[in-house]
Amino acid sequence: MGEIRKKGAQAKAAGLKLAALDYETRQNALKEIKDALIEDKNAIFAANEEDLKRAEEENLASPLLKRLKFDEHKLKDVTDGIDSLITLENPIGKTTLETELDDGLILTRKTVPLGNLGIIFESRPDAFVQISTLALKSGNAVMLKGGREALSTNRALFEAVRKGGARAGLPDGWIQNLESREEVNEMLALDDLIDLIIPRGSNAFVRYIMDHSIIPVMGHADGICHVYVDKDADLDKAVRIAVDSKTQYPAVCNAAETLLVHEDVKDAFLPKFKDALREKPVELRGDASVREVIDAEEASPEDWSTEYLDYILSVKTVKDLQEAVDHINHFGSHHTDSIVTENRETADRFLTGVDSACCFHNTSTRFSDGYRFGFGAEVGISTSKLHARGPVGLEGLTTYKYILEGNGDIVADYADGKKHFTHKRIK
Amino acid sequence: MGEIRKKGAQAKAAGLKLAALDYETRQNALKEIKDALIEDKNAIFAANEEDLKRAEEENLASPLLKRLKFDEHKLKDVTDGIDSLITLENPIGKTTLETELDDGLILTRKTVPLGNLGIIFESRPDAFVQISTLALKSGNAVMLKGGREALSTNRALFEAVRKGGARAGLPDGWIQNLESREEVNEMLALDDLIDLIIPRGSNAFVRYIMDHSIIPVMGHADGICHVYVDKDADLDKAVRIAVDSKTQYPAVCNAAETLLVHEDVKDAFLPKFKDALREKPVELRGDASVREVIDAEEASPEDWSTEYLDYILSVKTVKDLQEAVDHINHFGSHHTDSIVTENRETADRFLTGVDSACCFHNTSTRFSDGYRFGFGAEVGISTSKLHARGPVGLEGLTTYKYILEGNGDIVADYADGKKHFTHKRIK
Repeated sequence: MGEIRKKGAQAKAAGLKLAALDYETRQNALKEIKDALIEDKNAIFAANEEDLKRAEEENLASPLLKRLKFDEHKLKDVTDGIDSLITLENPIGKTTLETELDDGLILTRKTVPLGNLGIIFESRPDAFVQISTLALKSGNAVMLKGGREALSTNRALFEAVRKGGARAGLPDGWIQNLESREEVNEMLALDDLIDLIIPRGSNAFVRYIMDHSIIPVMGHADGICHVYVDKDADLDKAVRIAVDSKTQYPAVCNAAETLLVHEDVKDAFLPKFKDALREKPVELRGDASVREVIDAEEASPEDWSTEYLDYILSVKTVKDLQEAVDHINHFGSHHTDSIVTENRETADRFLTGVDSACCFHNTSTRFSDGYRFGFGAEVGISTSKLHARGPVGLEGLTTYKYILEGNGDIVADYADGKKHFTHKRIK
Repeated sequence: MGEIRKKGAQAKAAGLKLAALDYETRQNALKEIKDALIEDKNAIFAANEEDLKRAEEENLASPLLKRLKFDEHKLKDVTDGIDSLITLENPIGKTTLETELDDGLILTRKTVPLGNLGIIFESRPDAFVQISTLALKSGNAVMLKGGREALSTNRALFEAVRKGGARAGLPDGWIQNLESREEVNEMLALDDLIDLIIPRGSNAFVRYIMDHSIIPVMGHADGICHVYVDKDADLDKAVRIAVDSKTQYPAVCNAAETLLVHEDVKDAFLPKFKDALREKPVELRGDASVREVIDAEEASPEDWSTEYLDYILSVKTVKDLQEAVDHINHFGSHHTDSIVTENRETADRFLTGVDSACCFHNTSTRFSDGYRFGFGAEVGISTSKLHARGPVGLEGLTTYKYILEGNGDIVADYADGKKHFTHKRIK
């Protein structure tokens, strides 16, 4: 058995034990992990210094260096995160259905952990703690592969998390630390040992994982989000929302990439919008109808399906709501799309017609996020329609099982007509 | 564009319209479809005669001929099924979460259809109506490929369902009928047009579909179900349950394939069980410890992972509950497993420890079924942990979307600390 398969088998076995572990032990383990991180902070900071030094030598860009840094401030963020995770309700063991099939034959559906998660993430080392504690809270074992830049920091964090978990009595092997790209490739083949892969990182990276795994993958590759300014929009509101959606943080998936404007309001809206962008230098790429009103680069057909992740915005006019909805369903990535309108009926048609995980009305696309949605932490945002959709918190790391309890009940009695189902819904 | 891609695009577009259609229209369409089936019954029966004649000429086995037959009796089953589907609650538009993020900024999560389903099923033509009406009730477009044997019957059923739907105002193209294996292969590649594939049929068939599709597949290939007779079992109950689990209908996925017996009760239980099988000729394949007590063939290592779907049962003794749980998690298919015991604590350890969609206590594995669970109809049983698990009814054909309604709210206000989230759970 290869080294990674061995780690996978250990995690799988530990996951089965975690699923049977009482909630108090898991909660206590979160506390112990927090304490261990604080105890080990000097070792963690020293390891981070090594990573930072190597990164500087390798001329890593300064925003990446900033993300890589793990200091007192980041430690505080991480331990605050654990405190808040502890206050969230237990996602496991919830009864979501209870039916009496017949007298004394009771069916219940209960939430259970998925089992063993494989999570691959890029540079930010605080993600190591965030993800491993989310997995623990939801009763899952986890195999983590962090960014190469954060190798030493992740190793130190791994040691602290493992130690804290062990003190609370978690099963050995519930957390596994992988360190190389080759190990990831081996991990992607362990479909008998890993229940779900969650990749976090650039589009190209997520796409690579999706294309190379036979294990189900949860996440999103593209985030092509739209703001549609309707003919019945409050134009001041529309400007605020479009500016925020594009510029509040352009490098992320929930930033807007395309602005659709109803042709009836283009003359009133576009100059106002352009004016509001004076302080935020956004390159506009417009269709012919847009360029009749404001200065803009000429949009090419590729622009409608491009995720810029930058201060660039494609702008198009549409003749009615349906054209906006059709454009979004065709070119969008089913992530987050927002309409600005004061017309309730138009808003409802948009919210129903747009086939995206998050459909917004009179708000910025940037609200699409697990923390802002009130889920506590998030493991990512899913653009898949199966299993979890949109921002994914603890709930998305669970599945359920059906439990049927009887007293010697057999199907033959029902097939023969001796007995009949009552199917009384208890819950 | 190829013929199948064109059909897929039509269904996808119709699915978007269906998602926006009011519930009354969908309910009325179910009634119209029922009426159309009754109106067209002579054409349907005549088409079925053609299929039956061809099948007889081709010497189809008699159980298959019986499944192929579509007569007044089957028509009644099918129209009764539609009546009962009409009485089920609307699975679409349910609010499953409602949170105030801040004053006037309201997040809701609502159930929505998956979109466009691709369903491939074998001979039974009544499945054509059952599946298409389940899809419609859950607001989904559907592309169906039935068995070759039922070609004429399915075509006649398709015409009636399409006609009834059109009378109620369903969007054109919401149902598509495929007729050849080549069309299925083309369909499996339409990952931009089809949201979910559901294959129904033999293991080999389901496995083929799973291996050849890039679209998510819901279903199960294997059904290796276990009955575990604990040392604290009521042995009469254990005999009833083991006999029913194996023999009530051995050709289906929820029939038991392996019996595990605690070694403390093997001497008392096994002869009793063997005696009860006198009327039902089941071939027993036992390990050495079993064969010390009763006559049985010698089990080979492959027996523990074989789905017989026949009057054959592998039998093994275990030294304790944990060995039973480990055996089931290792060799089972995570479908349905049952413990027989009077010990509450042992039962709970089994129900928690076994990693299967359906975990039963003191009941037959044969109860694992959408109808028996009270879900009305079922599209299949899923052994996946993602999305739907176990018997899948209407709920498994839905996903959800997050809807956020505000009044010009922007993220910058929260990032700047001007505003703060309240995160008040409304529902």
